[in-house]
Amino acid sequence: MESNLMMYVNLAFGAGVLALIFSAWKTSWIVKQDEGTDKMKIIGANIAEGAMAFLKAEYRVLTIFVVLVAGLLAYANAGSSVSSSLTAVSFITGALCSGLAGFLGMRVATKANNRTTNAARTGLAPALHVAFTGGSVMGLSVVGLGVLGLTGLFIIYMNQGWVIGKILNVISGFSLGASSIALFARVGGGIYTKAADVGADLVGKVEAGIPEDHPLNPATIADNVGDNVGDVAGMGADLFESYVGSIVGSMVLGASILAAGVFDLSFVILPLLIAGSGIIVSIIGTFMVSVKEGGNPQKALNIGEFGSSAIMIGVMYLLITNLLPSSFELNGVNYSNMGVFWASTIGLAAGLGIGMITEHYTGTNTAPTTSIVRQSLTGPATNIIAGLGVGMQSTTFPVLIIATGIVGAHHFAGLYGIAVAALGMLANTGIQLAVDAYGPISDNAGGIAEMAELPNEVRDRTDKLDAVGNTTAAIGKGFAIGSAALTTLALFAAYMVQTGITKIDIANPMVMAGLFVGGMLPFLFSSLAMNAVGRAAMSMIEEVRRQFKNIPELSAALSVMKKYGEDDEWSKEDRKIFEEADGKAEYGKCVEISTQSAIKEMVIPGLLAILTPVFVGFVFKAEALGGLLAGVTVSGVLMAIFQSNAGGAWDNAKKMIEEKIELDGKTYGKGSEAHKAAVVGDTVGDPFKDTSGPSLNILIKLMSVVSLVIAPLIK
Amino acid sequence: MESNLMMYVNLAFGAGVLALIFSAWKTSWIVKQDEGTDKMKIIGANIAEGAMAFLKAEYRVLTIFVVLVAGLLAYANAGSSVSSSLTAVSFITGALCSGLAGFLGMRVATKANNRTTNAARTGLAPALHVAFTGGSVMGLSVVGLGVLGLTGLFIIYMNQGWVIGKILNVISGFSLGASSIALFARVGGGIYTKAADVGADLVGKVEAGIPEDHPLNPATIADNVGDNVGDVAGMGADLFESYVGSIVGSMVLGASILAAGVFDLSFVILPLLIAGSGIIVSIIGTFMVSVKEGGNPQKALNIGEFGSSAIMIGVMYLLITNLLPSSFELNGVNYSNMGVFWASTIGLAAGLGIGMITEHYTGTNTAPTTSIVRQSLTGPATNIIAGLGVGMQSTTFPVLIIATGIVGAHHFAGLYGIAVAALGMLANTGIQLAVDAYGPISDNAGGIAEMAELPNEVRDRTDKLDAVGNTTAAIGKGFAIGSAALTTLALFAAYMVQTGITKIDIANPMVMAGLFVGGMLPFLFSSLAMNAVGRAAMSMIEEVRRQFKNIPELSAALSVMKKYGEDDEWSKEDRKIFEEADGKAEYGKCVEISTQSAIKEMVIPGLLAILTPVFVGFVFKAEALGGLLAGVTVSGVLMAIFQSNAGGAWDNAKKMIEEKIELDGKTYGKGSEAHKAAVVGDTVGDPFKDTSGPSLNILIKLMSVVSLVIAPLIK
Repeated sequence: MESNLMMYVNLAFGAGVLALIFSAWKTSWIVKQDEGTDKMKIIGANIAEGAMAFLKAEYRVLTIFVVLVAGLLAYANAGSSVSSSLTAVSFITGALCSGLAGFLGMRVATKANNRTTNAARTGLAPALHVAFTGGSVMGLSVVGLGVLGLTGLFIIYMNQGWVIGKILNVISGFSLGASSIALFARVGGGIYTKAADVGADLVGKVEAGIPEDHPLNPATIADNVGDNVGDVAGMGADLFESYVGSIVGSMVLGASILAAGVFDLSFVILPLLIAGSGIIVSIIGTFMVSVKEGGNPQKALNIGEFGSSAIMIGVMYLLITNLLPSSFELNGVNYSNMGVFWASTIGLAAGLGIGMITEHYTGTNTAPTTSIVRQSLTGPATNIIAGLGVGMQSTTFPVLIIATGIVGAHHFAGLYGIAVAALGMLANTGIQLAVDAYGPISDNAGGIAEMAELPNEVRDRTDKLDAVGNTTAAIGKGFAIGSAALTTLALFAAYMVQTGITKIDIANPMVMAGLFVGGMLPFLFSSLAMNAVGRAAMSMIEEVRRQFKNIPELSAALSVMKKYGEDDEWSKEDRKIFEEADGKAEYGKCVEISTQSAIKEMVIPGLLAILTPVFVGFVFKAEALGGLLAGVTVSGVLMAIFQSNAGGAWDNAKKMIEEKIELDGKTYGKGSEAHKAAVVGDTVGDPFKDTSGPSLNILIKLMSVVSLVIAPLIK
Repeated sequence: MESNLMMYVNLAFGAGVLALIFSAWKTSWIVKQDEGTDKMKIIGANIAEGAMAFLKAEYRVLTIFVVLVAGLLAYANAGSSVSSSLTAVSFITGALCSGLAGFLGMRVATKANNRTTNAARTGLAPALHVAFTGGSVMGLSVVGLGVLGLTGLFIIYMNQGWVIGKILNVISGFSLGASSIALFARVGGGIYTKAADVGADLVGKVEAGIPEDHPLNPATIADNVGDNVGDVAGMGADLFESYVGSIVGSMVLGASILAAGVFDLSFVILPLLIAGSGIIVSIIGTFMVSVKEGGNPQKALNIGEFGSSAIMIGVMYLLITNLLPSSFELNGVNYSNMGVFWASTIGLAAGLGIGMITEHYTGTNTAPTTSIVRQSLTGPATNIIAGLGVGMQSTTFPVLIIATGIVGAHHFAGLYGIAVAALGMLANTGIQLAVDAYGPISDNAGGIAEMAELPNEVRDRTDKLDAVGNTTAAIGKGFAIGSAALTTLALFAAYMVQTGITKIDIANPMVMAGLFVGGMLPFLFSSLAMNAVGRAAMSMIEEVRRQFKNIPELSAALSVMKKYGEDDEWSKEDRKIFEEADGKAEYGKCVEISTQSAIKEMVIPGLLAILTPVFVGFVFKAEALGGLLAGVTVSGVLMAIFQSNAGGAWDNAKKMIEEKIELDGKTYGKGSEAHKAAVVGDTVGDPFKDTSGPSLNILIKLMSVVSLVIAPLIK
């Protein structure tokens, strides 16, 4: 290895360390902020405790899973000349890094919640600052641990004296580790959050008649934790997986490039360098996000996101033109280093484009969402039909962007170009994820303001942050899908290289059959996820009912509550009984029930995702598996966009009606028939956008990673 | 051409003639049956008149379309050595045959409606006999005109002295003609039937307060016509397209087979012979359908369907082993004639299998439908989620069957095997379609019994027929999708042969991009179809409102109606005013409005289906178009199964509740909350199962046929 290349790798490693230092610094800053009133402290502590309870339970199960799979990997790769048992070490490292990133990010998110609320008591600017800082810890932890883990392993494996192909085979286990955690965090998290939501709602509100966020409701904390579990940890693990996958995929493809007739390592380490410099750019980006009192928080976030994208383009230009030789050869075709640069730019632009289209289809007051509002007037059926139509139609432009991106990136730099496009899209993950995680933090901040009965101006400010959060969440979801698509393609191309197959011919009936079966899997996976939510919600409902019945203080308080109307004066005795029940609900139990059933429910979808490629690969061989992967990728991307956007549009159509808008001379508002119809749509959309839709991102990446890891064995 | 082969082709032609004679005979038998009471006669005449009004308006527009496309085809193929302007003649013939089959079938269906009702006054057996005879006219017209047109053209073109490749290029225009009519009948018909349904419902029932089938409602006839338009003419054109497509596809593939090193025409004419003998078997099958008084009509239909399948297998065995050489070569691989037989059997079994699975997912009292009933208890949202879940999950086994079928058929006889499998599945189209068309006929018969206020026992009998009709409709829809899938694959393989491309490599970025864009089209197409229903319904609503306002007799009658409660005694004067309005509603106008807007609304989806392959083929070339076709086929089949089955399951879940069932100790019934929720599900399912779902069958076949027709030009 040339010494200056080695130096570059060390620099990337350093950037990873820097990201973690930055995260630690921001974490300590968050911790130092004032938590607010006693009531706020209690609420905050409950949520934080619940979130940790979730992680604890999840990681317990994960440990068993990781040890098991690591054992299998070590066994399967033992004695192979092109691979090594160390694949298991890569796998464990990947799982640890992803798990640690989730832990760090979620811990800070739950700390930032009520500190954001407290800052909102002073003004909008400090509240934005706290919420965004909380998000940036998640963002930088993810990219930091991703780069650190990968470069660390790369350096270690380089020192083994292996050929580059073997190094990359072994390192791909890291990606599998990341995918495994993502499966648990995203699919399990998606089931968790909806189960808790439904449980808290149905037994608490409907059966017992207490308000949604009431402390007497044992599931209320689980419900609040759910937002963090799904939108912070789930999204983080999802992007961690994409991030790592795109780096590994492009490293593998880089290894098959010849420059002036010989192998050139710089193509392999370029991905690490882009990722490393992306960390620096993301950190710079976080400093660009600030808002003056009375300013527009959306604009502040946009400056951070688009500004850092612009810088990133410049950085990639410098890196690529300096590091790579001006011309090189891939599969017998000649390309230039400028081609690689264009490919990376295409990816970055595609990510932003998909995000903006997602916003168009799911944002408040956009034409598609407004059409759903209109159709709510004639009842839930037309609301549902309109939402399904919007979701289906919203697939058009993202797919055209992806297709153009594929053709464009390949034109400029072959299969390596497609992988570099994924890399370009994800180079900014640090700041992108910071903006994403900002959403649920300010969402929760608003909830805490409500629960802690703070003055209206506080709620107004958090509402303003929250509204921006909804938009960023939509963009973030679009970005997650887009990056999943490109990452999967990068992994897919890497899979082809590692198996040595030169074509995947649709005219081959095995490939065509693979396409069909692969295309079907996202439908099956979605239906399993939706059924799982139903069953997990049932377990939660039973647990809440049990607590209401078996905890004497709770049942006493509930019967006392039933005595009084909303405005009645309570007797002193009854008030005492009521107050004694405070805190008697076993929140942790509900959190664990939700966690347990989420984890139980994801076994079958998880096994489906992991075992299908193994089965098809070993029984029907590499080309059929290629067809399967292509089918699952195309259909998965489509179903993910369809479901996520339909869900997002239903959600915001409901919000538009709740904000009492006027359309075609008719006024829509809370409690109207249109509102009832919109609530039905929103409820249908919930599992779509929070469970089945996003979990397809994981499905497609996981299946590609599994295929990539077993590639040397089915070659 | 060997003279005995020529004799075989003439025999197939003769079978086509026989089918038409049979149809004519059955038609005259139907016409001779008693139409029943005067009231029944009027209702029947109105429906028949409306149906013809639809056809008239549709064919007017179609004529322009056909002339235009024929001109283009003549121009584009003029002077080509591998093709000819006669492609336009094939196209016109195909369109004429399909149009004529639709006309004959629908005319008889609308005549059989009230004759079935009248027969039901005597007993179940005669009613079944009339309804099934009506259906068999549709079935035999379709297969008769299909075989007649194709063999006729084949004989004519053989006499031109062209090489076989040119003959098949030119003959593929027939398939395009069939597809064009199918587009109008299925997509337009789907929009028509739902627009009329919603229009009649919303203005008639909700705004004016008159019952759904009341003669004062100008849209009521359009509504009744809609059932025939969608389920008889639409299904007929759909299967005509599959039938013709599978024959043409396998003829094209047969031409690339070498036996003992030389081209053997018997592979090209085998498809015509299988189709011809299928006609005879179907006619035999119709004689097997009969039921004794008190017997089970389902069993009677099953005997016809499964019995003729069994005979068909024997006939195919004899044909294939006698006609084909015992061994032959395709793309360098050797196969045996027994292999071709196995491929045909695989197709036939796959068709039945998919039908039975469809029945499982959508039938009354099956586990999936019952799960939707259970979820209706907690409101419309859970009903919708459950239905979507059932629809998605129902894709699993049909896709596994299709995938296994592809691999199996290819194993036995290469690409020719896949086409022969489609042929095997469709060999029985005559009887299959007879059973399909029986459904809407007995459906309408029940409606007429209700409107004509016949005794309860009549309604009981038609209900019994109707229940069977629902099951056959479900199976028919599954069969239509399965046959569309296999036919598309046959056309796809034929496309590859005609363009001369030897592979469609997913690693080629153009192919991958094609896969993505192709996969997206069914989503876009579905959303367009659903939006179209909404707008078409709007036009209908406006027309009904206009008539209520501008036709003095109608507005007078409406205001008179509002004076009285349900059980009030009417004054003599008011009764006179009311009676004077009878027949004053301009039903034909509504029928035309619905037809016009249906046709207008299908322009964009239609152009999308036709122009996309043309654009992609000429700009991005044959391999990219191959990727596009693969994408649209896989995604289209999945979305069609998902939507059709979700719609079917919602429909029957509602019916189960209306029949007042007991589940888990709870009683469900009409008017309950569960029923209201189920009505929402049914309304969402309507455009799913009657418009967007089935029209995807057309999309995938049409795009493949267009590609096949332009194949010589983009070669």
